[in-house]
Amino acid sequence: MVRAVSGPTSFSGGELAATEHLAALLGSPPRGEVWVGDDAAVLSGREGPLLFATDLLVEGVHFERALSSCADVGWKALASNLSDLAAMGGRPLAAVVALAGASQPDLDSLYEGLLEASRAYSCPLVGGDLSDSPVLVVSIAVLGTTDGRPPVLRSGARPGERLFVTGTLGAAAAGLRLLRVDPAATGELVGAHRRPRPRLGEGIAAASLGASAMIDLSDGLGLDLARLAAASSVGVALEGLPACAGATEEEALGGGEDYELLFSASPEIDVAGEFARLGLRPPIEIGQVVADPATRTLDGEPLPRAGYLHRL
Amino acid sequence: MVRAVSGPTSFSGGELAATEHLAALLGSPPRGEVWVGDDAAVLSGREGPLLFATDLLVEGVHFERALSSCADVGWKALASNLSDLAAMGGRPLAAVVALAGASQPDLDSLYEGLLEASRAYSCPLVGGDLSDSPVLVVSIAVLGTTDGRPPVLRSGARPGERLFVTGTLGAAAAGLRLLRVDPAATGELVGAHRRPRPRLGEGIAAASLGASAMIDLSDGLGLDLARLAAASSVGVALEGLPACAGATEEEALGGGEDYELLFSASPEIDVAGEFARLGLRPPIEIGQVVADPATRTLDGEPLPRAGYLHRL
Repeated sequence: MVRAVSGPTSFSGGELAATEHLAALLGSPPRGEVWVGDDAAVLSGREGPLLFATDLLVEGVHFERALSSCADVGWKALASNLSDLAAMGGRPLAAVVALAGASQPDLDSLYEGLLEASRAYSCPLVGGDLSDSPVLVVSIAVLGTTDGRPPVLRSGARPGERLFVTGTLGAAAAGLRLLRVDPAATGELVGAHRRPRPRLGEGIAAASLGASAMIDLSDGLGLDLARLAAASSVGVALEGLPACAGATEEEALGGGEDYELLFSASPEIDVAGEFARLGLRPPIEIGQVVADPATRTLDGEPLPRAGYLHRL
Repeated sequence: MVRAVSGPTSFSGGELAATEHLAALLGSPPRGEVWVGDDAAVLSGREGPLLFATDLLVEGVHFERALSSCADVGWKALASNLSDLAAMGGRPLAAVVALAGASQPDLDSLYEGLLEASRAYSCPLVGGDLSDSPVLVVSIAVLGTTDGRPPVLRSGARPGERLFVTGTLGAAAAGLRLLRVDPAATGELVGAHRRPRPRLGEGIAAASLGASAMIDLSDGLGLDLARLAAASSVGVALEGLPACAGATEEEALGGGEDYELLFSASPEIDVAGEFARLGLRPPIEIGQVVADPATRTLDGEPLPRAGYLHRL
């Protein structure tokens, strides 16, 4: 999920409870499949796991027309879906796009951004739906593959492992803050808000080197780290917060929409070396997985609760 | 696409133009794949064609809360997506559901209907997204398979072939008309509006017996027949309109939301016999495919233009 609202929000939203409730309703998947509760669902196919995910953006909730063009919204809608595939170590096969409430000029602009992201990340747009609506809605579903590798779930982190993020944090939230002051603002932070980059190469690299758990930072490190820890029944001890230049610590922790990946890996793995071998920026080591699930610390202090949840 | 608005609408909407425009933008798929322009996209997989489709429902556009419960909306949202798979001769593998603007009671009711349809048509709900929104939106994407058979496209109808529909028409529109007069109305027509049944078995039967072209009647026979004829570059001569008991001729032609299938087949094929062999109701023969693409007749008279298009 993506967000337009800035600033840390409390954990007490209805979204987590609703998701847990739905997981119970939907029942247990067959062996080898994963349904609700990870970044993408995993379906078993004869040729290996398929990934299936959906993410929708609503005007006024996920984006403001005054601050982002429809082309930016189109890019971000596809990018946020692709990020869900990245978080499982997958690559995209195809996407379908359902649009509601777009005028003809909106449509052209939305598809400009959608097609830019489609080409940038080799994800053909193969179909869709168009509808009237009082509010602009962009709903995308993506199909992906792990090319036979086991997908990386949120639930595999083990005590003693190291935690990594694929880049500095808070840029998207800082960019949104700048845009709110000056809608004509430009620069890297604004670009990070408008055109987030799904870390597909990094996700495949992490999966290949044996990452034990992974999640994308769509709702902020504070919340997404807690999700990974809860799914793995472990605690986490952060040793610093890699805020990007120009972002506050709050934005780095609770800002969301950075779409960097958070993953865990055994200390015996040369993560930086493996990334470098693939021509990728080395990930940033941010802390350790610990045994006690109640432990959530930053430099030894309790980790502030922050991150974006829909109210519902 | 599905609709809540009753009565024939003119052809001059923006939806067709927008769809053609998008098809041009998205470019040509690789050999063996079909992107925009059919009921579902066809992706080539090593184990045979995969089908991928999406359809979204917006409150006030596709449904009215006063006339349908959220459970009905959930059922219809999944059913309309499954109908797109049926129209290609496919069966469902999985669906993802993105919901926006649903309160907790809405969510429970939506999932009640979604899960009823999921069980009725063996389509597991494997994931989704939840979001705030000022208006209720239900967006679904489905993945399906043809189990190795070639998918039935809209474009394969040839002159001399016979046209069939899998059931009588107009029930859903008639049901909506009754509900508008009395929101407490019940009965078969109301049921057809609230709980349409995707014709998955019929679609597989038609594909198996060698149907040359197929489409689902989501927007009304008038419009969907024109789509099939245009895709196949043929004309059509109808020999009667199988309106269901209680539906007007207008509702049968332009009502939409019946989700029956329309298909063409060679006159040498014993269509009724093949359906009966599979324990299915025999389809209704409604006319003939003719060579001149300008021919669109009903009992020798020009076919009235009717069907639902979004304005955009």
